[in-house]
Parts: sequence; C-alpha cells; structure tokens
Amino acid sequence: MRRILTVAALLAAALPLEIGDPTPARAETGMQISPIGDRPPNPGPASTFTGQVTVTPLFGATSYSPTSGGQVSFSPCARSAWHTHPAGQTLIVTAGTGWVQEWGRAKQQITAGDVIMTAPGVKHWHGAAAETPLTHIAIQNAVDGVNVAWLEHVTDDEYDG
Amino acid sequence: MRRILTVAALLAAALPLEIGDPTPARAETGMQISPIGDRPPNPGPASTFTGQVTVTPLFGATSYSPTSGGQVSFSPCARSAWHTHPAGQTLIVTAGTGWVQEWGRAKQQITAGDVIMTAPGVKHWHGAAAETPLTHIAIQNAVDGVNVAWLEHVTDDEYDG
Repeated sequence: MRRILTVAALLAAALPLEIGDPTPARAETGMQISPIGDRPPNPGPASTFTGQVTVTPLFGATSYSPTSGGQVSFSPCARSAWHTHPAGQTLIVTAGTGWVQEWGRAKQQITAGDVIMTAPGVKHWHGAAAETPLTHIAIQNAVDGVNVAWLEHVTDDEYDG
Repeated sequence: MRRILTVAALLAAALPLEIGDPTPARAETGMQISPIGDRPPNPGPASTFTGQVTVTPLFGATSYSPTSGGQVSFSPCARSAWHTHPAGQTLIVTAGTGWVQEWGRAKQQITAGDVIMTAPGVKHWHGAAAETPLTHIAIQNAVDGVNVAWLEHVTDDEYDG
C-alpha cells in the first residue's frame, strides 16, 4: 500500500516529478491536516534545475482533483530547466526576486506578491535573480498523471540574456 | 469587454464568490505576470463570514483550468460560514493559528505551514483562533463555474465548542 501511494504521489507531485518521499498531502475523504513536519524539503535534482534549489511538497492530486502544489526555493542564480506544463501552471511568489522567461521573449522580473500564469504547452523557465533568492508556490493540474515536461537546461548565456 | 471579464472572474473567483473587482489573475495565453497591486484585498462579506476577514484574489479559472486561488486573512475570532466545495479545497496556512471543523467532528487546530485538504461535499468551516489571526491560501476547482456552496453561519457556541 505504501508503495502504491508513493507511485501515485510521484505521478501527482509538484515539479519536479523526480522527487520521491516525502509525499505531499493527499486527502481522499473528509478533512485532513498535513503538518509541515510531514513534508520536509528535497533538493531540486540537477537533471531539471541549475544551482541550489529546494522543493517542499505541499499537496498532491487525488481521485477527485488533478491539482498539485509545491513550494520551490531558488538560491541566487538558481533556476529551473526549460519546461512546459500540459495543463498550464500558476506561480505565487512568496519571497524574494527572480525571473521568468517564455521561449522567444525577453525574461521578466518577478517579485514577492506577483502571480504568474503560464498557459498549457508554453515553453518557459523560472528562477532566482543573480543576487537575490526567490521562493514561489507552484500549482498545476495533471493530464493523465503528468504535470510537467522537462526540456534542456537554461544556459548561463540565456540566464544572463 | 470589461463586464464580460468581470462576470467570468466572479464565476471563477476564490471564496467568497461574492467578491467583485478587483479580478484575480487570468492568463489565457503565453505567460502573464499579475502584480500584487492589481489585486487589492476586499472585505469578506458578512453573508458568508463572521468577524473581520480580508480576501485577496490570487488567480481565477481560465478556459484551460478550473482552478482558482485566493488569500484569506482572519482577525482573531473571525471565521467562514459553514460551506462545502463541489470539487474539494486545499488550504495552505501561511501565517498564524486557527481552527478547521468538519461537520459532526471536533474542531482541529491549524498553524502556519499546515496544508488542509477537504474532499468534495464535506461541510466545514475555517477561521482564526480566539486570540491570534490566521492567513491561508485557498485553492479550489470549479464545477460548472461554481466552487463553493455557502450554508449557515458558525455560531459562537459552535466556534467555542
């Protein structure tokens, strides 16, 4: 049962999909409280991030909802790889300053309080500014259990551009 | 056009549905940034809340996503009315201490960092503790444009119970 839950949580997890235990909150019935201590942070894997990134699971998809969320903290200069989301994504910036960039457009500064919405299939990246960290909550819906498609890393030239 | 957007935003808005302007972020294409200044807080209406409550829109549903989110701040003793969500709801407590209660069960304390998941149709309320404020982000999916069904207020006896 534990293994089944873990696989389901992997499918449903916030980015990156590679994070394993701990699992995000998943309530199938009633009303359930998940304390922060049950969802310790994981390092963001080098396969999908550049620099020091910490991913804290918040909540995973359930039988009744395809929505999952995670909190991601980027150290200065750290950023995600380029990626797309099959059902789009919403970021809520909770601290710091950073950048988002849509493929083919100039990067744009984001700061605490901003909400960033990215439509399905739009190639983009997000990360911290060069001299300040960034933390955001990321919320996305899964399509057939998948909520992100990872692409190539963001090069230093792209980051600086 | 402005009116069409406003009606759509009302349908898609975070709780409570009664909030009007300002509209939450709604990106239909590409990648869009909504600064916090474009989404000023509204008072939570007396029809669906008890006490002093502030609702800050975060993001609304789009053509590709039924998911909306809002930030709700409760002063001490303030709380929502009893209500249900047709597709469930997730709360992320960002500050303070408060209570949640599922109909027919004892109230449970919640605190910053907790994530609370409520399944579809489960009658419940949430709010601040008697002596401390509470702020949470609320995320829910709409069914046919509706994401909450409001019921009776939480009496003082129920709140104290």
